[in-house]
Amino acid sequence: MNVVQVATADTADFDAVMEELGRAAKAAAAELAYAPRTTKDTALKAAAGAIRRRSEEILAANDKDMAAAEAKGLTGALLDRLKLTPDRVDAMARGLDEIAALEDPIGQAIAAWEQPNGLKIERVRTPLGVIGVIYESRPNVTADAGALCLKAGNAAILRGGSESFHSSRAIGECLIDGLRQAGLPEAAIQLVPTADRAAVGRLLTMPNYVDVIVPRGGKSLIARVQDESKIPVFAHLDGICHVYVHEKADPAMAREIALNAKMRRTGICGAAETLLVDRSATDSHLKAIVGDLIEAGCEVRGDDGTQRLDPRVAAATEEDWETEYLDSIIAVKLVDGVDDAVAHIAAHGSHHTETIVTDDQAAADRFIQRLDSAIVMHNASTQFADGGEFGMGAEIGISTGKMHARGPVGVEQLTSFKYVVRGTGQTRP
Amino acid sequence: MNVVQVATADTADFDAVMEELGRAAKAAAAELAYAPRTTKDTALKAAAGAIRRRSEEILAANDKDMAAAEAKGLTGALLDRLKLTPDRVDAMARGLDEIAALEDPIGQAIAAWEQPNGLKIERVRTPLGVIGVIYESRPNVTADAGALCLKAGNAAILRGGSESFHSSRAIGECLIDGLRQAGLPEAAIQLVPTADRAAVGRLLTMPNYVDVIVPRGGKSLIARVQDESKIPVFAHLDGICHVYVHEKADPAMAREIALNAKMRRTGICGAAETLLVDRSATDSHLKAIVGDLIEAGCEVRGDDGTQRLDPRVAAATEEDWETEYLDSIIAVKLVDGVDDAVAHIAAHGSHHTETIVTDDQAAADRFIQRLDSAIVMHNASTQFADGGEFGMGAEIGISTGKMHARGPVGVEQLTSFKYVVRGTGQTRP
Repeated sequence: MNVVQVATADTADFDAVMEELGRAAKAAAAELAYAPRTTKDTALKAAAGAIRRRSEEILAANDKDMAAAEAKGLTGALLDRLKLTPDRVDAMARGLDEIAALEDPIGQAIAAWEQPNGLKIERVRTPLGVIGVIYESRPNVTADAGALCLKAGNAAILRGGSESFHSSRAIGECLIDGLRQAGLPEAAIQLVPTADRAAVGRLLTMPNYVDVIVPRGGKSLIARVQDESKIPVFAHLDGICHVYVHEKADPAMAREIALNAKMRRTGICGAAETLLVDRSATDSHLKAIVGDLIEAGCEVRGDDGTQRLDPRVAAATEEDWETEYLDSIIAVKLVDGVDDAVAHIAAHGSHHTETIVTDDQAAADRFIQRLDSAIVMHNASTQFADGGEFGMGAEIGISTGKMHARGPVGVEQLTSFKYVVRGTGQTRP
Repeated sequence: MNVVQVATADTADFDAVMEELGRAAKAAAAELAYAPRTTKDTALKAAAGAIRRRSEEILAANDKDMAAAEAKGLTGALLDRLKLTPDRVDAMARGLDEIAALEDPIGQAIAAWEQPNGLKIERVRTPLGVIGVIYESRPNVTADAGALCLKAGNAAILRGGSESFHSSRAIGECLIDGLRQAGLPEAAIQLVPTADRAAVGRLLTMPNYVDVIVPRGGKSLIARVQDESKIPVFAHLDGICHVYVHEKADPAMAREIALNAKMRRTGICGAAETLLVDRSATDSHLKAIVGDLIEAGCEVRGDDGTQRLDPRVAAATEEDWETEYLDSIIAVKLVDGVDDAVAHIAAHGSHHTETIVTDDQAAADRFIQRLDSAIVMHNASTQFADGGEFGMGAEIGISTGKMHARGPVGVEQLTSFKYVVRGTGQTRP
């Protein structure tokens, strides 16, 4: 591992360290770009082996992080994310093997055609280059993110939360072990060797070394990254996903989808946060849905029409239409048909995932065509907004941007392309 | 046209004007996103008609610009770019008709698959949104760029050079005429209504309204835009294209390609600027190529080995390896095989277009695989680096970035995508 010790917080030293990290990553990326699939997969499988072999070492490092975090007074959810168990370590190793088993996107021809003059043109996948991943204190992201970047031929600079410093470092050493066994440059996966928060700021402003930034974490982290970055960012700030129940929805299907979209797991970005229902379907559809949700332990905040249905429905405020609860709370609003639903989503949504429930194909087509969200669904739960559920294998996150990667960011989305033109001596007239 | 008069240079007013431009563009883009092909093509053809009909008006506006430019002392090449003639006006109208005839990328399924649970997933092309185009005083870009953006369902904010203000405005009015005839929002194509240079700075820093910036012009414009923009930029700063003659190249083919790549047109970005030749091919290949180039009026600047071949070869300095001459000058260097050529290009190139001339397939494959340029060729002239020659129809420029659009930027590259998921009531287990 390209571990550079940072002894002091001296700014000049610090800049030099980050500069060296970037330079080494760029050099490694140039080599990774043409590494054959077998070499990359050997590194991934060897890293998985190292994680299994050094499991106790990783757990000991994690104990150190956990003790420090508890001493700092971290709360339950944060501690749970930080905590590693033998099962979790094993799942990490399995994740690396799964990434090794994915198709190698590099070198694939995305398109190919021949011009009348005989030139054969191909658009061929290439790596993006160097990817900076900034994440909170979830040690497993070190393995997942490093492996996904490597699979797509990219060098990775990883910056985990400071609370997971020792755990991430122990995992990082296993990744480096894998790289070494495969004969790949060790700088292909580097950990920022300091817990200093300013390192993030520096990473975001090295466009000459870093091609993309992928932040993984809560809203404040993403907002900071999007605000400060001079480098393209693959991320989503909010996942305010909508379920729209159209008047021609099958009532049973609408109940199942609404309940699943909200309550299956409330903490994921594809969980529904707002339910829109046609006013004409208030009694036929919404009444039962509200009952289901409340019975499942969900707090329902509704507009006037929804409140009238059930005394347990609280009053929704304007703020509710733009809140990602990530909790057992849902905002409910009556709308007057597809266009009204689309207008509400356009005004208050986050361009993540929306679904319409209806048996009316024309209504579904209109909803799908008019919404500018990364994922638009018909008769399916928003909880399917996930790279694994899309068949992409592992994902590093979901992007709501419109540039390059949109929706789940898997191994294929971590690539660029170039044109390969093959001739037989053609010159341009 | 959303013409807002800017009476004073008052900054508050100015910000308000740009804000209003952005807001109107975003609203127009939302409508354009689902405009059917026929409507967009009607607008384009009607605009072509308006340009033909109002040709004299456009020429009169151009006369005004030309007179002012001459009074300002503009030089020959700049004046030539600014100048419109009846033929050039006609070519502009023809260009609009050609863009109308292109396939509509919007709504096309780029990929489609079905998951084991029956969910049908499609990746469908969508517009990018709002595109800001910043260009120098070439009035025809107003028509080309506005039309390409519109074809891909994007709203355009156009900012031409101040010298072409009246010409661009007359052309812009024809585009608006077309939009009006098709019933599309007039703000779909807007011209920045002031010649104030600060307008560019404002345009580059409105990420909430503008999705992409496309600069067209000289290096100083591109550099400024890349430096100041808070919005993704599709551009290339330099086109330092390389021709590499491998020792196993057919000598006649090498001569033809080298001459064509450099001399067909020296002012385009795909023109070769550096020639690399295997040391072992100095007498067999390079001698004749140098003779051809000098005979065609090209100044040759070479390393020691090249200078020895011909007394007319000047000495190349380090600077020559990184200079885009855009003129009848070429830098020539001897190298020791493919890896040496690749190393030179990686160190000094601009990631635009490179070609290898060889009959050795393995050498060609190595060159193609190891170079990270937007376009890599084998046995073809670099002058083919052009959207039209690639069969893409009109292009708005060539990008050397690795994000989203790379290589020629045609109508397809001005799109994004979304996922459409169609189910039959699936919920996630």
